Order: sequence, then structure tokens, then C-alpha cells
Amino acid sequence: MSTAPSPNASRDGDEEPRSARKRRGILEAARTLFLRNGYRGTSMDEIAGVAAVSKQTVYKHFADKKSLFSEIVTGTVNEAGDTVHDQVLKLQESGNLEADLRGLARRQLAMVMQPQVLRLRRLVIAEAERFPELGRTFYERGPGRTIAALATLFERLGTRGVLQLDDPHLAAEHFNWLVMSIPLNQAMLLGHDEPPSAPDLDRYADTGVQVFLAAYGRHSSALSPATPGGANE
Amino acid sequence: MSTAPSPNASRDGDEEPRSARKRRGILEAARTLFLRNGYRGTSMDEIAGVAAVSKQTVYKHFADKKSLFSEIVTGTVNEAGDTVHDQVLKLQESGNLEADLRGLARRQLAMVMQPQVLRLRRLVIAEAERFPELGRTFYERGPGRTIAALATLFERLGTRGVLQLDDPHLAAEHFNWLVMSIPLNQAMLLGHDEPPSAPDLDRYADTGVQVFLAAYGRHSSALSPATPGGANE
Repeated sequence: MSTAPSPNASRDGDEEPRSARKRRGILEAARTLFLRNGYRGTSMDEIAGVAAVSKQTVYKHFADKKSLFSEIVTGTVNEAGDTVHDQVLKLQESGNLEADLRGLARRQLAMVMQPQVLRLRRLVIAEAERFPELGRTFYERGPGRTIAALATLFERLGTRGVLQLDDPHLAAEHFNWLVMSIPLNQAMLLGHDEPPSAPDLDRYADTGVQVFLAAYGRHSSALSPATPGGANE
Repeated sequence: MSTAPSPNASRDGDEEPRSARKRRGILEAARTLFLRNGYRGTSMDEIAGVAAVSKQTVYKHFADKKSLFSEIVTGTVNEAGDTVHDQVLKLQESGNLEADLRGLARRQLAMVMQPQVLRLRRLVIAEAERFPELGRTFYERGPGRTIAALATLFERLGTRGVLQLDDPHLAAEHFNWLVMSIPLNQAMLLGHDEPPSAPDLDRYADTGVQVFLAAYGRHSSALSPATPGGANE
């Protein structure tokens, strides 16, 4: 027979999974409630109720409602942001830059326009003045990270002469917002959580890429090597 | 001595201005409180208190908090939107299209990045799911109207061959968001109400115009006369 595990090991073995399970349950309940009722419309009591744990258990895992909300924001944005970030950095070049960038833009747009990501973005904007650090987290883990990855990609393509640019970060900002702004701003202001149809989203992605390449592509006329403002200098 | 006015005329003459003055006072109080404390953080009691009128007087002028908020949104967005709309439609062409569009973009950006317009936009986004009609008002009187005016302008410039485009509305969307998205999205998520420095805003406006003209200008290479998606068709 095997040696009995020490009492400590036994306690760890039993409690860690249960504790982790409870934590996950609390996070799921909180996410559902925050996305449905907003930050101010959600209480720790309700979260405990939906998670079927005591309020003390909720507070054992999360110091306060704000910490819990922060965890939801970080988790959701990381999940969407990780995917986009990886897709940008691992872009397989097929030799057809426009097609490659279209594929990237379409995937990026589909990720950002997910109903739960839209709702979370709206919640973060709603609370941005009271909790600027949450907005900063959303920005840095979301659009900020995508833009940084795009800047790395564009700098590489610029070095090889595939793109013409002298400010990869600005080019990345332009790419990002050319692709996303039309449907994203409509969704934010009009309160739509269901994204536009896939063909509409693809059209925004494709035409955004076209404008980007007109400015920064190899045969572009306007943006390079002149610096911004160059036309009047 | 003049004939004494009829009792009715006297009542109208005295009460109309007082009533209008009270209404304006209520609107000012409500605007201050909504922008400071948000929609849910503001009560009709507080509005009455700051406006120094009774709660009944507030309700005499506005059926409920939502109507009052709607009036604030409409008034603020109309004020900013009217200016931008007029500037777009009355654009004086100097013969230097890039300079003209830069001037337009800079003025448009300065209008949208006003602290009170940013805060209102954030409030409207926060309430967009509960009050989609408010979001629609903001969208239609704000960006929607600017984009429609830009589309009219660009269609005219397209007809004259100054721009090359086959979808003026899409071109207008691209112009609008190329100019505004970088600072606007940062402001929304990071909770900044103070806009970036004027040189930074000018740079966003100017480089946005450059990208736009690379795609849609007379010597543009990519967007016209090919239709979107043309590169693969």
C-alpha cells in the first residue's frame, strides 16, 4: 500500500480544486450579471446568489466588486486580444499582401465585434472616469496591444520595402481604425450587440485595407517618404 | 395713460419669460449634474436643488429624468454638430484640396474633442442599451450628420474629378474616422476629458487627410475606379 499522504497534502488536494471551482463559478456569475445589468446594477449579493456560494466566499476570492469587475475585464479582453495579437504576429505571407491583410482585418473585426466584447467595451467606457485604471487595462490589453503588434509587422514589411512608411505605429493606428471604426462606433452609440452581417463586416475590413494600402502600399503616392505635413514643407 | 392690458395678456407677458428662464435654469443644472455624476447618479431632486426651483416645477417642464437627459443630449450634440455640418457644406475651396481638408479635419476634431462632448458621448454609450433612442439621436445628429455632409461634399468633388470615388458615403466614413479615431478611442477608454495637445490633434487630422487623399485623391492608385473587392475580381 502506498504511504498515506500527509494531512497537508490531503487538504491541498481536496481544497484547491474546490476553491478553484468556486472561483470560476463566481467569475462566471459576475460576468453574466455585469454584462446584463452593468457595473452599478450588479451587487455582490446577486453574484453570490447566482454562483450559489455565500457572500463570504465571494469576498474570500475577491476583495470587492471592483476587483471582480477588473478580473472580468482583463480576462475577456485578454482572450480576444491574445487571438488577434497572435494572428498579427504569425501572419503567414502568401505573396499577396492585400489578401493577407484582408484576412487579418476580417478576423480582427470578427473578434472585436463579438457581442460580449462590445458590451464589455461599453461598460468600461461607462466607468472610465471613475475607474480609469480599468479603461487603461482594456486599452492596453485590447486595441493598444493589437496596434503594437501591427506596428511590429508593418515595420518588418517596411524594412523589406513591401510597405512604404516612416512611422509604423501611426500606420498601425490607421490600419486598426480603418478596419474597425465604422461598425464599432455604430455599435457603441446605437446599443447594438448583434454585429452587422458577415458580408457587411467583410466589406468594412476589405475597403479599410484598400485605403490603407493606397496610402502605405509599395506604389502609394502620398505618405512616404514624405513625413506627415510634408506637402506644405 | 395707456389702456391697461387685459388680465390674460398681462399673465402671458409676465409668465412666459419667467417660465422660459426656469426651463433654461433646469437645463443648465441638469447638464452640469449629468456630466458630473452620470445619468443614474443624478436625481430630479438634485436638479431641482441646483436650479433653485421646486421639484414640481421641474416636472412641469420635463415629464421625467429621461426626457430631461434627452434634451441635454440633443442640445449639446446639435450645437457641436451644427457647426461641423456647416463647415463641411460651406467649405471654401482654395484650390489646395489637401490644405482645405486639413482645415476641415482640424476644426472637426477640435469640436468633437471638447471635454463636455466627450463626457456626453461616454454617458450616451453607457446608456445605449437601456435608451437606444438616445444613442440614435446622438449618432444621427452627431457623426451621422457629419458623415452625410462629407458624403455630399465628396460626391461634388468626385463629379468634378477632384476626388476619385464611387461610394461617397463610404469615403466620408473613412475620412471621418481616419481623422477622429485615434484620439477619440483613447479618450473614451482612458477616461480623459482633457483632449491631447493642439499639435497632437493637428497631426492626427493632417495624417488622416493624407491617408484619405492617398486613397481617394486624383492621383490615388487603389480605390477607383475599381470597386471594393476589385483586386480579386
